[in-house]
Amino acid sequence: MSLDTVIYALDLAGIAVFAITGALAAMEKKLDIFGVLVLATITALGGGTIRDILMDKMPPFYFERWEYLVTALCAALLALFMQRALLRLWKPIILFDALGLGLFTVIGAEKALQSGYPFPAVLILAMLTGIGGGMLRDVLRGEIPFVLKKEIYASASLAGALAFYPAWNAPRIPESAAMLLGAGVTVFVRLISVKYKLGLPAVRGE
Amino acid sequence: MSLDTVIYALDLAGIAVFAITGALAAMEKKLDIFGVLVLATITALGGGTIRDILMDKMPPFYFERWEYLVTALCAALLALFMQRALLRLWKPIILFDALGLGLFTVIGAEKALQSGYPFPAVLILAMLTGIGGGMLRDVLRGEIPFVLKKEIYASASLAGALAFYPAWNAPRIPESAAMLLGAGVTVFVRLISVKYKLGLPAVRGE
Amino acid sequence: MSLDTVIYALDLAGIAVFAITGALAAMEKKLDIFGVLVLATITALGGGTIRDILMDKMPPFYFERWEYLVTALCAALLALFMQRALLRLWKPIILFDALGLGLFTVIGAEKALQSGYPFPAVLILAMLTGIGGGMLRDVLRGEIPFVLKKEIYASASLAGALAFYPAWNAPRIPESAAMLLGAGVTVFVRLISVKYKLGLPAVRGE
Repeated sequence: MSLDTVIYALDLAGIAVFAITGALAAMEKKLDIFGVLVLATITALGGGTIRDILMDKMPPFYFERWEYLVTALCAALLALFMQRALLRLWKPIILFDALGLGLFTVIGAEKALQSGYPFPAVLILAMLTGIGGGMLRDVLRGEIPFVLKKEIYASASLAGALAFYPAWNAPRIPESAAMLLGAGVTVFVRLISVKYKLGLPAVRGE
Repeated sequence: MSLDTVIYALDLAGIAVFAITGALAAMEKKLDIFGVLVLATITALGGGTIRDILMDKMPPFYFERWEYLVTALCAALLALFMQRALLRLWKPIILFDALGLGLFTVIGAEKALQSGYPFPAVLILAMLTGIGGGMLRDVLRGEIPFVLKKEIYASASLAGALAFYPAWNAPRIPESAAMLLGAGVTVFVRLISVKYKLGLPAVRGE
Repeated sequence: MSLDTVIYALDLAGIAVFAITGALAAMEKKLDIFGVLVLATITALGGGTIRDILMDKMPPFYFERWEYLVTALCAALLALFMQRALLRLWKPIILFDALGLGLFTVIGAEKALQSGYPFPAVLILAMLTGIGGGMLRDVLRGEIPFVLKKEIYASASLAGALAFYPAWNAPRIPESAAMLLGAGVTVFVRLISVKYKLGLPAVRGE
C-alpha cells in the first residue's frame, strides 16, 4: 500500500469522524434534519477548505471527487439514526475525534511541506486543518469555539505538528513514520488531557 | 433580450432583495446606521463571494463594476427609511426573499455548469450561492443561521438545483427555461412551506 | 527611509496593537492561554487575510516571513503577562487601536490602488483590512461585531479611505503624505468619537 493510499484512507476516516461530531453538535441545538446534514458537512470539510484557500488550491478537492461528500453525508445520516447509541458510545467518539484531529493535523502539515512552505506556515496549516472545521461548526451553532476554550485541543494539534516537522525532515525516517508519529503525539496529548481532565489555565478576566 | 441580460437583471434583483432582508435583520439588533449598511451589503454579496472563492474567481465581480454595490446600498437605504412600511409588507418580503433564493440558486448552478464542474459541485455551489449570504448575516448578528433551523430553506434551494440540473443537460430544453424551472421549484417549495407552516422535523437533542 | 520601509514598520505596529486588543478580548471570555494566542493572532492577521483572499494574493504574506506571526504572538504574550497594567492603560490602548485602524485602512487602500482596482474596490478593501480582524475576533468570541454597533469605527475607516483616495491621485502630493492624511483622518474621527461619546444613531428595531 503506497503512502498516498494510506493518506487517502486516513483522510476519509477523519472526514467521517468529524461529520459525526458535527451532526451530534447540530442535534444538540435542535436544527432540522437538513441543517444537521449541512453542519456535519461543513465540520468535516471546513478545515481542509480553509487550508486550501490559504494554499491557493481552489477549487476544493471535493468538487471533482464524490467520495468526500458522500462519506460526510453517510456519516451524518448514521449519526442521525443512531444518535442514542452514539451518545452511549461517547468515549469511542472522543477517541475517534482525537484520531480525526491527529490525522487532519499531519495531513495539513504534509501538504504544506510538499508545497515547500517554511516552518511557521506548516504549523499554521496543520492547526487550521485540524481545528478549522470545529471552529466553523461552533460559530454556526452560536457557541464560542470549543477548541479555544478549556480543554487541550488546539495545543494537541500544535504538539503533533511540532513532532512531525523534524521527523519529516530527518533523512532516515520514512514519511509514513513521520506522519504516524505526528498523529500519534496529537492523539496521545488529546486523550491524556481528557482522561486526567487536564486543561491549560484559563485566563482571569477583568 | 439575451440569456446574459436576463441573468444580469435577475442577479441585481436578488441582490436588492437580500440587501433588504439583511438591513431589516440588522435593525432588529439595533446596529448603528453604518452597521446596517455593512450587514446588508454582506448579506447581498456574501453568497456570491463564497461561491467565487471556491471557484477560484477572485477578485470578486463587484470590484470592477459599481452597480452591484450601488444596488445593495440603495436597497439597504430604502429599508432604513421605509422600515415601517416594509414590515407591513412582510408577506411581499417573504415572496421577494424566496425569489432571491431561487435566483441565486440557479445562478450558482449555472456558473458551476458553465465551468464544467461535476454534479456534487453544482449542488454545493448552487446552495452556497443561495444561502451563504444569509448564513453570514445571521452569524454576524449573533444568531444561529436561520437557514439551518426550523423552516424549509436550504432544502428549497437544493430542490431547485436538483430540478435545474437534468433540465440544463436535456438537449431540447433551452437554458433559460431550465433556469426558470429551477428558480420556480425553489420559490414554490419555499412559499408552500411558509404558507402551510411546513418544516423538516427538528432533531431531538440529548 | 523609503516608503516601503515605512509601510512595513507601520504594518508591524498595527499587527502588534490588534493582537493586544484580541488578547484582551479573549481574556474577558476566559479562553485558555492557547486560545488567547490563537484569537490574538486571528485578530491581528485576519483583516489582511480577508483582503488578500479577495485580491487573489494567496498564499498570505505571513507564510513566507516569520516576523508577522512572531510580532502577533509576542504582543499577545505581553498582553497575557501584563493584563492588569494594560487595563490601567485603557486610554493608550484606545489610542493604539485607533492607530492600528488608521494604518490598516491606508495599507488596504494602498494595495488596492497599486493593483489598479477602481474606487469602490479601494473602499471595500480599505475597510475590510481595517475592520476584518475585529469582526472575526468578535464572531469567535460569540459577540455581535463591535465595529457594527454603537461607536463610530467602520465609518472612521471609511472616512480615512475617502480622504486618502483623492490625495493619492493628486499629482503633487507624495504617496507617503497621502497615507499620513488617510490614517490621520481615521485616527482623528475615531478618537473624537470616543472623547465625545459620539455614535451614529442606532436604528430602532420593530
